[in-house]
Amino acid sequence: MGDLDESELLTVLTPPLPASPLEVVGNGDDGAVLAAPDGRYVVSTDVLVEGRHFRTDWSTPEQVGRRAAAQNLADVMGMGARPTAMVVSLVLPGSTPVAWVRGLASGLGQTCRRAGAGVVGGDLSAGDAVVIAVTVHGDLEGRPPVLRSGARPGDLLVHAGDLGSSRAGLALLSAGLDPESRPADGQARRCIERFLTPVPPLEAGPALAAAGASAMMDVSDSLLRDCGRIAAASGVLIDIDDPADDPADEARGAQDRRLAGARVALEPVAALAGETDPAAAARGWVLTGGEDHGLLATVPPGTVLPAGVSVIGRVHDPLTAPGVLVGSRPWEGPLGWDHFRA
Amino acid sequence: MGDLDESELLTVLTPPLPASPLEVVGNGDDGAVLAAPDGRYVVSTDVLVEGRHFRTDWSTPEQVGRRAAAQNLADVMGMGARPTAMVVSLVLPGSTPVAWVRGLASGLGQTCRRAGAGVVGGDLSAGDAVVIAVTVHGDLEGRPPVLRSGARPGDLLVHAGDLGSSRAGLALLSAGLDPESRPADGQARRCIERFLTPVPPLEAGPALAAAGASAMMDVSDSLLRDCGRIAAASGVLIDIDDPADDPADEARGAQDRRLAGARVALEPVAALAGETDPAAAARGWVLTGGEDHGLLATVPPGTVLPAGVSVIGRVHDPLTAPGVLVGSRPWEGPLGWDHFRA
Repeated sequence: MGDLDESELLTVLTPPLPASPLEVVGNGDDGAVLAAPDGRYVVSTDVLVEGRHFRTDWSTPEQVGRRAAAQNLADVMGMGARPTAMVVSLVLPGSTPVAWVRGLASGLGQTCRRAGAGVVGGDLSAGDAVVIAVTVHGDLEGRPPVLRSGARPGDLLVHAGDLGSSRAGLALLSAGLDPESRPADGQARRCIERFLTPVPPLEAGPALAAAGASAMMDVSDSLLRDCGRIAAASGVLIDIDDPADDPADEARGAQDRRLAGARVALEPVAALAGETDPAAAARGWVLTGGEDHGLLATVPPGTVLPAGVSVIGRVHDPLTAPGVLVGSRPWEGPLGWDHFRA
Repeated sequence: MGDLDESELLTVLTPPLPASPLEVVGNGDDGAVLAAPDGRYVVSTDVLVEGRHFRTDWSTPEQVGRRAAAQNLADVMGMGARPTAMVVSLVLPGSTPVAWVRGLASGLGQTCRRAGAGVVGGDLSAGDAVVIAVTVHGDLEGRPPVLRSGARPGDLLVHAGDLGSSRAGLALLSAGLDPESRPADGQARRCIERFLTPVPPLEAGPALAAAGASAMMDVSDSLLRDCGRIAAASGVLIDIDDPADDPADEARGAQDRRLAGARVALEPVAALAGETDPAAAARGWVLTGGEDHGLLATVPPGTVLPAGVSVIGRVHDPLTAPGVLVGSRPWEGPLGWDHFRA
């Protein structure tokens, strides 16, 4: 790629990228101009660094592109908005193959297209490692934004999307599985795919906002850590169902056994990854595995839940201080991913 | 800094950063919500990489922060908009001193405050080199955006801000001058300061848009390269005044001698930097030195120019093909900065 100048590189990058439905002026000037039909817009930004957020020996460039788009789109979803447009800054070493850059753009474009969002601009620089900085915008479609601070005692804690799958996929690859080796176990294969490309339930964001969610966020770090953020912002106590519960417990509704079901499904994967206590590992992955980019929300009791949304806990008065319990007991293990230390 | 976690680092970063006047929901959720009073907003993004766009042995962290903010704000200005809010993604090595991070935030905050813009969010990651990715937003205040494509034959080419100063400052530092050594020559001192912290004429953007500019952009790469972009987008021929002209030529108005004046002012600096032909070097810096982040525009004849704006050339019919002349003659030297190759 070292032979290409900036404008030649742009002819590789831009063709796979869709335009935004709200684009007034697209790429090619000092900035883009976007429409804001309801007089407001959501903005969020996320950066991915080679060797920290992805490895080029584990991920194809398409997977890296899909991941960069997905985790940013999920932040817009977490506000209850519909993603509309992103800008992408790329730092690329001169040794990056042109095919890698083309694949990255292709992955970005695929995920944006699926979400109905466009790419309206960006910047390029040379550097020693790949860095992908995305800023994404969303349209609230007339609804109030759903913040972390709106959870109220009596609300139900709900979730849509994957829990622990990405972390399980990481465990498999870290244990030496080749990402190309496609293990016979379907769940294991799915976990590796999810680690390489999270698939946020993008439709659930606007749907839960429309259904009346009181608080909402994208689960990027871990279920426990992000429940802690809602608890702190809302001044409530959140009691998460214990994934160690019996998933066949007849005393609870099917919707109430989501975390136990997730734990059970991950146990064989934990065994395959060489964990000595697969049940404990799978429980930990569900509670503290990050990067699934599922959607975490609280809803008033009686809310009709959109498809794909399950109840995973309850919101209570903060007896002494805001916080999080697991199965009504304090959690004493690690909380999960800290982006900066990682 | 390796001892701090993400939330501790945020307590260092956020206090110097102003809020945005258009902020509906600020930092602390998955995204910010900004007001778009006229139903549209401008968005632009720029990335700075340590060792490519700044050197930590040349620039203080405040200067790096001011530069990151200034070059992004200048892109919003180039559309004729008023900057309102930015998001900032930072990649920082674990070895970065906390004082450096505090200085960076302080510089960012100072320049944002001067422009009336706020910082409404961001992201942090560890990495091997400092990377600063900024996305900035602007308000068109009801005016149409000023694009690169609107220049018409008969228009005047105008400019506000520095030309060649940043490139001259780079030449001084590259020649071994210590940035702390503050040379006795006032112009040389000013060039070093401008290289370390460009000062875009932010007010000139909305002012020229309101005055009726037909095309406009921020000069980030070089006067010649960026005139070429306007010429190509507008399908015109742009004839730039030759900086080699006599700045005292009585046949031309004082406003028409801006480039010659800039060249004359840079000649002693070129000599100080060890250039064997200071006049030729200074002429080249004016035409091809990038990173000054001045404002380049075209205006219909008879336009009342805002303060600080000078005429530097003329727009003609593209006899055979769109392009750029210098003093009515073709330019055969280099065009200036290519961000990707740099």
